[in-house]
Amino acid sequence: MISEHYTPEAVILANGEYPTHVLPLKILEEAKFVVCCDGAANEYILRGHTPDIIIGDGDSLSPENKTRFSDIIHHIADQETNDQTKAVHFLQEKGYQRIAIVGATGKREDHTLGNISLLLDYMKSGMEVRTVTDYGVFIPASGTQTFVSHTGQQISIINFGAKGLKGEGLVYPLSDFTNWWQGTLNEATSNRFTIQCTGEYLVFLASM
Amino acid sequence: MISEHYTPEAVILANGEYPTHVLPLKILEEAKFVVCCDGAANEYILRGHTPDIIIGDGDSLSPENKTRFSDIIHHIADQETNDQTKAVHFLQEKGYQRIAIVGATGKREDHTLGNISLLLDYMKSGMEVRTVTDYGVFIPASGTQTFVSHTGQQISIINFGAKGLKGEGLVYPLSDFTNWWQGTLNEATSNRFTIQCTGEYLVFLASM
Repeated sequence: MISEHYTPEAVILANGEYPTHVLPLKILEEAKFVVCCDGAANEYILRGHTPDIIIGDGDSLSPENKTRFSDIIHHIADQETNDQTKAVHFLQEKGYQRIAIVGATGKREDHTLGNISLLLDYMKSGMEVRTVTDYGVFIPASGTQTFVSHTGQQISIINFGAKGLKGEGLVYPLSDFTNWWQGTLNEATSNRFTIQCTGEYLVFLASM
Repeated sequence: MISEHYTPEAVILANGEYPTHVLPLKILEEAKFVVCCDGAANEYILRGHTPDIIIGDGDSLSPENKTRFSDIIHHIADQETNDQTKAVHFLQEKGYQRIAIVGATGKREDHTLGNISLLLDYMKSGMEVRTVTDYGVFIPASGTQTFVSHTGQQISIINFGAKGLKGEGLVYPLSDFTNWWQGTLNEATSNRFTIQCTGEYLVFLASM
């Protein structure tokens, strides 16, 4: 059973808009280990916090922070990935598995798309990574899974190649969606719902 | 040759965040015909404008606007589509073809995904519809196409089943991407670039 409530071992603050909703802010506040993606550290530090690690080349850091936090800036040279993925890889190497990403959306929409879709890659590499936004949580999943919900909760399912998609406990039937919007705007009919399929997909549980 | 500069025949103001960047605001300002998706009309009216049509059930309209603009509220009963698509269909029936959508992103990320992916459907139905955001423009495309760009312009290509993807005039090579992020963060090397393939894809031209 997959629940939207879970306690991450580490939190990544990504390069999108700084969270404003209580849920991602609480996750950030209670985090045992915080990795900031480059420029995201500026706002985090401004709010009185100290990152455990800053991932990136430091180009988006203020000159002051670049100097002050030089000992925790971790530069990973890899043209093939973005800072969010570098942060996940860093945590994976340190033995972390359950990770929440906040601040990954809300600015450039192509970055939002990229950041969200990477959750599937992290899942395939054995990590349990979610993106918590101001509006809900994205959870990557594979095969048949049951999710904790509440009656009337807005649910979206984005298909990443899953076949034989069927739902239980959802208002609208599922099928092998070929376009993203087809799986959006669904709704839970009770306190759990099940997605049956083979293959991978992304579930968005709206927090409102 | 596809250029990011074009003059739409009509503009749809969707239900996401109201635009703040000069480009979508200018498009809205200069629009010959404006369709507001339900609640989006409130902000548009508040700024001193009058929509030509309001699409939706009026549930998100202020009681005052619901009364004042009752003669232009167009209710389309269709559980299978969202207000953005209803607006496109409305315009299609009226003979419009070149449409710009603004305000389609920036709130719930699942709505953003849905709204963006629908551009492919509109293209398949013979319409020329783009989404202009605060950060750039999403253009749906099919087969080999050349795009106007500028040197260093950030480009993202989201594959919707296209095969044989190759690029010319881009910093990083294209391939038959299976995940969204793989096509993001590319860059134009000059004032035009070409995407070669069969099938459909979405191009994001960053405006910064």
